[in-house]
Amino acid sequence: MKRLAILGSTGSIGTQTLDVVRNLPEEFSVEVLAANSNVELFSRQIKEFRPKLAVLADEAAYKKLSEEKFSGTELAGGRQAFIDAAAFGDSEIVLTGMSGFAGLEPTIKAINCGKNIALANKETLVVAGELITKLAENRGVKILPVDSEHGAFFQCLQGEDRRSIKKLLLTASGGPFRGKKFDYLRNVTVKDVLAHPTWNMGKKITVDSATLVNKGLEIIEAKFLYGVEYNQIQVVVHPQSIVHSMIEFCDGSIIAQLAAPDMRLPIQYALTYPQRLPSPIKPLDFWELKSLTFEKPDAETFMGLKFAYEAGKWGGTLPCAFNAANEVAVNAFLRGRIKFLDIYGVIDDVMRRRPVKQNPTLEDLIAEDLEARRLAEEFIKEEI
Amino acid sequence: MKRLAILGSTGSIGTQTLDVVRNLPEEFSVEVLAANSNVELFSRQIKEFRPKLAVLADEAAYKKLSEEKFSGTELAGGRQAFIDAAAFGDSEIVLTGMSGFAGLEPTIKAINCGKNIALANKETLVVAGELITKLAENRGVKILPVDSEHGAFFQCLQGEDRRSIKKLLLTASGGPFRGKKFDYLRNVTVKDVLAHPTWNMGKKITVDSATLVNKGLEIIEAKFLYGVEYNQIQVVVHPQSIVHSMIEFCDGSIIAQLAAPDMRLPIQYALTYPQRLPSPIKPLDFWELKSLTFEKPDAETFMGLKFAYEAGKWGGTLPCAFNAANEVAVNAFLRGRIKFLDIYGVIDDVMRRRPVKQNPTLEDLIAEDLEARRLAEEFIKEEI
Repeated sequence: MKRLAILGSTGSIGTQTLDVVRNLPEEFSVEVLAANSNVELFSRQIKEFRPKLAVLADEAAYKKLSEEKFSGTELAGGRQAFIDAAAFGDSEIVLTGMSGFAGLEPTIKAINCGKNIALANKETLVVAGELITKLAENRGVKILPVDSEHGAFFQCLQGEDRRSIKKLLLTASGGPFRGKKFDYLRNVTVKDVLAHPTWNMGKKITVDSATLVNKGLEIIEAKFLYGVEYNQIQVVVHPQSIVHSMIEFCDGSIIAQLAAPDMRLPIQYALTYPQRLPSPIKPLDFWELKSLTFEKPDAETFMGLKFAYEAGKWGGTLPCAFNAANEVAVNAFLRGRIKFLDIYGVIDDVMRRRPVKQNPTLEDLIAEDLEARRLAEEFIKEEI
Repeated sequence: MKRLAILGSTGSIGTQTLDVVRNLPEEFSVEVLAANSNVELFSRQIKEFRPKLAVLADEAAYKKLSEEKFSGTELAGGRQAFIDAAAFGDSEIVLTGMSGFAGLEPTIKAINCGKNIALANKETLVVAGELITKLAENRGVKILPVDSEHGAFFQCLQGEDRRSIKKLLLTASGGPFRGKKFDYLRNVTVKDVLAHPTWNMGKKITVDSATLVNKGLEIIEAKFLYGVEYNQIQVVVHPQSIVHSMIEFCDGSIIAQLAAPDMRLPIQYALTYPQRLPSPIKPLDFWELKSLTFEKPDAETFMGLKFAYEAGKWGGTLPCAFNAANEVAVNAFLRGRIKFLDIYGVIDDVMRRRPVKQNPTLEDLIAEDLEARRLAEEFIKEEI
């Protein structure tokens, strides 16, 4: 039985992770649940999974939760308690299902305690790829990718030598606006953006999918997970989201991973690895599937890819600035403060203005994150 | 440097194998070349690859070859010399590139001498699957598949546990007559049949592709190579021949192997396994590839699949009878003695008439092969 800590348990990844646990009750025990502020759902999760520790990062939400009694579960609240939850007790795998830069500190804490990471929080690797991969290597900790694309790479690499990788073929659905141009994108609404064609996800990542910033973040994530160069990562638009990614090897052979678009599969694989166990995922029926299509991404219109390659190639603190600017811009878009295409404007402005510091420490990154956010806010207030 | 014996060196697989060797001169030495009767090509191969032993199975061809001088190469001729070539000297891998039942004895001989088999002669496993797999297991010998489909399964299984296999998805181009019905097939010519849309292969296998008997043989081959049940093997028509086969695992995940249709890739992988090395295969370009399509095979019209499942499920000597009847029928078709659809008639008649003997010995199989051929000839002479 593997002992799990699930951070971000009330989010999209968190609830699907608990569904995986529910389907394989003999395999897992939930030691820790941690979330932000959804008291009602969190309370139900505690009752069902009976963790030893349950933490809400939001103080007010924690106060409300404390009014209930949960026998056998220690409660805690606040940002520091959330970070400490990553290190709690004897959990073996910490699943990082929270979104954004906030995932960095708990992830580092868990690695420092020698816990394997089931990584759903891609921003961690984007912002601090070098730092995290070095730390994980030093502590002998496994980074198990939960993203469907990186989970696909991970599966395709089993039994292979990483030095044989020629190219990572990172597939992208293309998002809800595939084929559209600036004149259309200028006036799209939040509602348009949140109608993703193939994946049902959290709001932030759904916006990132529409801008292709999500694919950009995944490029940087892939670079650090698999130690390749940026020119070895090629994005391929594949609207059906059946092929979750592919690896081309030096002999010209390509290994691909396919499945119905259901996040429970990469989550389960990360948690049961190196085993595979039965799952409730609907099998693909190739007699009915008809056609899988592939095309070149429109990188002129969807500038998320361009920013990511640029941030990644400069390295140092620039991916952190890229990510921070994007987080602020997406938030502003979701609140109706800026338009869809302004997201690119914010990122572009912040990336131009931030000097790049190489080999950043955690403190450098926290400072960079703050400063990039400040600049992004300033740009939104003054220019838009 | 791996030492190779290449049986069937002048055929389609043999010449492509020598091309692989030519591209990786540091990796391989050719210890043995053996072919049937193509003196001119064989003579050139001996001069280029300087094997220790060179054998022609055809006595007359051998006599003609003996008129030339080859320094450092011992020459031999005749059927027995061909079989013995499989056991010669210190070759580590014997590539079985000959076609048909004739591959069985040399393969058994090589396994008995503890040599790994790069298996291109699928009839060997079809006819004697149980016998061969047991023998290989007892002798600690690897069977490395050279067929593009079984090579794909082999690649997809690296790093995986065979017990996690749920289904083998065996892809088929569908052959030159995909979508056609009996009224069309009744009058197709040898020339129509030999115009295969995606693969350039030997004549016998090209006819087998058109009848789907080839795919049927591959079903039986897959059953023995990967120890699955017949109901775990699903044929999927995929006209582009880019996905060379796929494996569905118990968690619903599918691993697929893709490449340009070029036999040198599975040949090279079998020979360099477990390594991958650079190859001259044209890489796939997913930005240009557009679409991969999949459909259900028309098993009512193309009865090769039905015969194979039936032969496989009965087991014992029946796959041997199936294969013998097919070899005779294909030969008769290529010589213009029977029509295309008569191939099914011959197979059907022979399979109906042969009693099934379980757990056959090599002698049983040789006898079964002879008797099934006799019946097939009889049917062709008397009924067609």
